[in-house]
Amino acid sequence: MSLAVVGSIAFDAVKTPFGERERMLGGSAVHFSLASSFFADVHVFGPVGEDFGNEEYAILQNRSVNTDGIERVEGGKTFFWRGHYEYDLNMAHTDDTQLNVFGDFEPKLNDSARDADVLFLANIQPDLQRAVREQCPDAKFVALDSMNLWIDIAKDSLLQTIQGVDAVFMNDAEIRMLTGQSNLVKAARELLQLGPRLVIAKQGEYGAALFTEHGFFALPAYPLEDVIDPTGAGDSFAGGFLGYVTQHLDEGGELDDDAFRRAMTYGSTMASFNVENFGTERVRDLTGEEIAERFAGFKAITQFEEVAVSYR
Amino acid sequence: MSLAVVGSIAFDAVKTPFGERERMLGGSAVHFSLASSFFADVHVFGPVGEDFGNEEYAILQNRSVNTDGIERVEGGKTFFWRGHYEYDLNMAHTDDTQLNVFGDFEPKLNDSARDADVLFLANIQPDLQRAVREQCPDAKFVALDSMNLWIDIAKDSLLQTIQGVDAVFMNDAEIRMLTGQSNLVKAARELLQLGPRLVIAKQGEYGAALFTEHGFFALPAYPLEDVIDPTGAGDSFAGGFLGYVTQHLDEGGELDDDAFRRAMTYGSTMASFNVENFGTERVRDLTGEEIAERFAGFKAITQFEEVAVSYR
Repeated sequence: MSLAVVGSIAFDAVKTPFGERERMLGGSAVHFSLASSFFADVHVFGPVGEDFGNEEYAILQNRSVNTDGIERVEGGKTFFWRGHYEYDLNMAHTDDTQLNVFGDFEPKLNDSARDADVLFLANIQPDLQRAVREQCPDAKFVALDSMNLWIDIAKDSLLQTIQGVDAVFMNDAEIRMLTGQSNLVKAARELLQLGPRLVIAKQGEYGAALFTEHGFFALPAYPLEDVIDPTGAGDSFAGGFLGYVTQHLDEGGELDDDAFRRAMTYGSTMASFNVENFGTERVRDLTGEEIAERFAGFKAITQFEEVAVSYR
Repeated sequence: MSLAVVGSIAFDAVKTPFGERERMLGGSAVHFSLASSFFADVHVFGPVGEDFGNEEYAILQNRSVNTDGIERVEGGKTFFWRGHYEYDLNMAHTDDTQLNVFGDFEPKLNDSARDADVLFLANIQPDLQRAVREQCPDAKFVALDSMNLWIDIAKDSLLQTIQGVDAVFMNDAEIRMLTGQSNLVKAARELLQLGPRLVIAKQGEYGAALFTEHGFFALPAYPLEDVIDPTGAGDSFAGGFLGYVTQHLDEGGELDDDAFRRAMTYGSTMASFNVENFGTERVRDLTGEEIAERFAGFKAITQFEEVAVSYR
């Protein structure tokens, strides 16, 4: 089984209180691909410019990500984002965005994308997400991410796109904004009414929450003393989540709440590694052993036992 | 074994998007007492004015809270707080504070307080907290709560008071503010260095996190569709936590990380009930059965199982 992702491939310039990088590989599809590559056969789709070179391809290919779907635009420049984080890291400030080749992006999938069993529509214009989704009618599980920009300027399209997916990954503030519901539980239930089986509320340093038809599950973020660069954490989360879902489907596993709880934990695991260094620097060199150890770490920080109590 | 709390006893006027109350029983010591009363023998200490009547005493006494330590000041008026919450409920806005009898409060404990095995120093001036703590040298477990005001105007005193307690309950933003550390893990570890065994970071709608010498535990807030009034949630949390600690000590239990994780869960349980109605209206009528059911609910929304995964 294979997993396809459509989204941005970028050069990022990032400054945090702990250092900076002037130009490094980034973008939602890149962070997603690397994180999911530990679990599944991943195909990445998105446009790049002529400035996208062997070094960048190598980072993806070293993790066995299939890069045939990267569309290299002659004479074009790769999407560029410059941002910085303040001392508290919870809020990214965008200093510059150059869409470049991403401005004219019209996703045309190849056969390996159309045959993907699991599909991730990273945070791009919702019309494009829907166009991609329609090119993959046989996908067994489709998820999307989005952001406040699309809620502001393309809300109806986003709501329509949500109707056609199995899972929605969004920040909790965005879920509230999209539904106009201040209570997150109500807001998530409203999105579930539109059709998805799952709503995943990303909560940054507080972790993530999963809403299903009858269920709820929440997992804290891993307690890290050194968070270096949060860029890409959300896409790494989605990568760990959907990577596990793909492997689980491949093994004939059922997509029940138990499976989705494990997917949440793999998502949180990959996000926790992502923030430990700039850009892709931590995740691209990870080992399965490290992932397994941190998964166990999540169990260790969340489990508790009941004992008899007498109530007065 | 008994549990004593020193803190404010108040009349609150609260307005939320879901209704309002012009004058209801409130205050940190009241919320704490009611929540802890389900687990332990509780003695409440604090000043009230002549306007504090039988109806208010009855709310506490119906839950078997010992009110002998309530000091009724002749000619005085009870502490009064007026506040409101906006649509998102995460931020309380104070519209009026009348300290009244609380302005001249000098806690003089009676024998039953001095003999208390567990002591909670609710959010009052840190010099007063220290004075109370020194009157109870034999207490087996002492905890305090505090707030941004004291960090602003009495930081050194607060840090000194923290050195003499076993547990610190504070909002995560306040823990960061007090230590000047933006990373919560580092900030909490810094407070542990001062002497306490536990630092509990209250995180509002995101739940709470527990830091111990070698451990970490986090629990989400219970997913509620209807949060009516968050006033007193933090004190109800501390009440459930320390109420359980008192009962556990009484049974000869050891205060290890397992016990504190259960205490966190009872704390979260009581906080989740507290916000379901105005002021004390939900907690004062609770049953042990409801508490046990919600404790089990917390287990249901946080547990997950590991399975074998192959990493690529």
